[in-house]
Amino acid sequence: MAEQELRIEPGRKVELSEYDPGCTRWFKDKADGEERLAEDVARIAEMQYTMWAENKHALLVVLQGMDTSGKDGVVRHVFSGVNPQGVRVISFKKPSENEADHDFLWRIHAAVPARGEIGVFNRSHYEDVLITRVHGWITPEVCEARCGQINMFEKVLRNGHLTILKFFLHISKEEQRERLESRLSDPKKNWKFQPGDLEERKLWKEYMKAYEYALSTCSTAHSPWHIIPSDKKWARNALVARVVRETMEGMKLKWPRVKIDLEKVKVPD
Amino acid sequence: MAEQELRIEPGRKVELSEYDPGCTRWFKDKADGEERLAEDVARIAEMQYTMWAENKHALLVVLQGMDTSGKDGVVRHVFSGVNPQGVRVISFKKPSENEADHDFLWRIHAAVPARGEIGVFNRSHYEDVLITRVHGWITPEVCEARCGQINMFEKVLRNGHLTILKFFLHISKEEQRERLESRLSDPKKNWKFQPGDLEERKLWKEYMKAYEYALSTCSTAHSPWHIIPSDKKWARNALVARVVRETMEGMKLKWPRVKIDLEKVKVPD
Repeated sequence: MAEQELRIEPGRKVELSEYDPGCTRWFKDKADGEERLAEDVARIAEMQYTMWAENKHALLVVLQGMDTSGKDGVVRHVFSGVNPQGVRVISFKKPSENEADHDFLWRIHAAVPARGEIGVFNRSHYEDVLITRVHGWITPEVCEARCGQINMFEKVLRNGHLTILKFFLHISKEEQRERLESRLSDPKKNWKFQPGDLEERKLWKEYMKAYEYALSTCSTAHSPWHIIPSDKKWARNALVARVVRETMEGMKLKWPRVKIDLEKVKVPD
Repeated sequence: MAEQELRIEPGRKVELSEYDPGCTRWFKDKADGEERLAEDVARIAEMQYTMWAENKHALLVVLQGMDTSGKDGVVRHVFSGVNPQGVRVISFKKPSENEADHDFLWRIHAAVPARGEIGVFNRSHYEDVLITRVHGWITPEVCEARCGQINMFEKVLRNGHLTILKFFLHISKEEQRERLESRLSDPKKNWKFQPGDLEERKLWKEYMKAYEYALSTCSTAHSPWHIIPSDKKWARNALVARVVRETMEGMKLKWPRVKIDLEKVKVPD
């Protein structure tokens, strides 16, 4: 089970230097990874249709990672092919004034997927303990308190029909350099370039620390974090798809039985 | 251009009996239709990615039709494969109490796609001049007034960056019988069956009249209706995809130019 291998056990103190972002040991080679991705995506699409019909379960996928780590890429490669009627992708940006006037989980709760849906958060409430902490906009005490609030909030969500999967897309600093440079040189990637990304890159060490704290504190039994080695895009996509597939298979999704005696029903002229 | 052939010219008085729901004249055969669908879907996915990057245009696709006409099927077959980050499907159901306390376009406006997005309405504000009219919940005068409001509202939307495409999925009464019966007999389709659908079927004639009125009154230059022959599912999917593709090609989507001199930018260590 890839899910178990990639999952951070509750209470574990994560040191990211112990995790190799280039690891591909689950696959023979790239072709093997791509083949398994295609299989898993087809299976996810199939199961999502049953999930939609059954209208019982919901799945929330949280994607976090440094700039260029591949959050958009995961959305595109893992969830294209799934019926968009049952998938909702929410990209969280800088809070609006109105959002900022509420607690930081307010806009998050509003975006949680409904029964039958897969919700994908491209960035999430975790930004409120990452970028905010790295830039000193909140104190370590507030950060700690927020992580406690996140754990309680996620437990509230988890007590219903919702399953939560959180993925940290782990890339190396060297790989980020290459990807940023290709945004500068490739005309089809220019649009992704934002000068602010270079400033954030200078804070790499501080970000790794903030991630280590969040991953260590907020990987719970009810809402686990997974560390996805993401230097190889194909491995990253295949691993996320595999964990999603395994998790959905665990839901034992079924075509719903209708409570009407259909044999007695007659379609009128 | 399929778009032009299927479009209802503004001012035209539609009589649905003049439109053959089984027409497939755009295609050699089913295999041809499926091949073209696959091509068009791939092209739509490609263009949607550029649209997302460019962040300039938005496309709203409105799907209406009798029960079993294939609104869900169009969403699944035409928009699976498109990056779900750029597609938002909204299924409008019976208004909530809070929604009903506002004008009927209030919840519609809130759901309109943002720049870069394709929004798909599975049912829409047109229900407020269809089911409501057929059941006599509104008078003909209110219905007429609402159609005028719809035209103004859609013109407001259309004056910005948004393109609107409206599709009426046209099936025959006989084809609906077969589809309803297969919902009764096929265990994978049972979940779609709702006893209320049989009651609505009894009002087929009234529905056709209400559709004729709405299609005649609300197909405008800025926001046209298209009649899609939908007795053959493959033709229906291929025709909708074709119109969407042609419309997106007309947007002349481009990878955006960045306003920074990228050659002067250096990625820090």
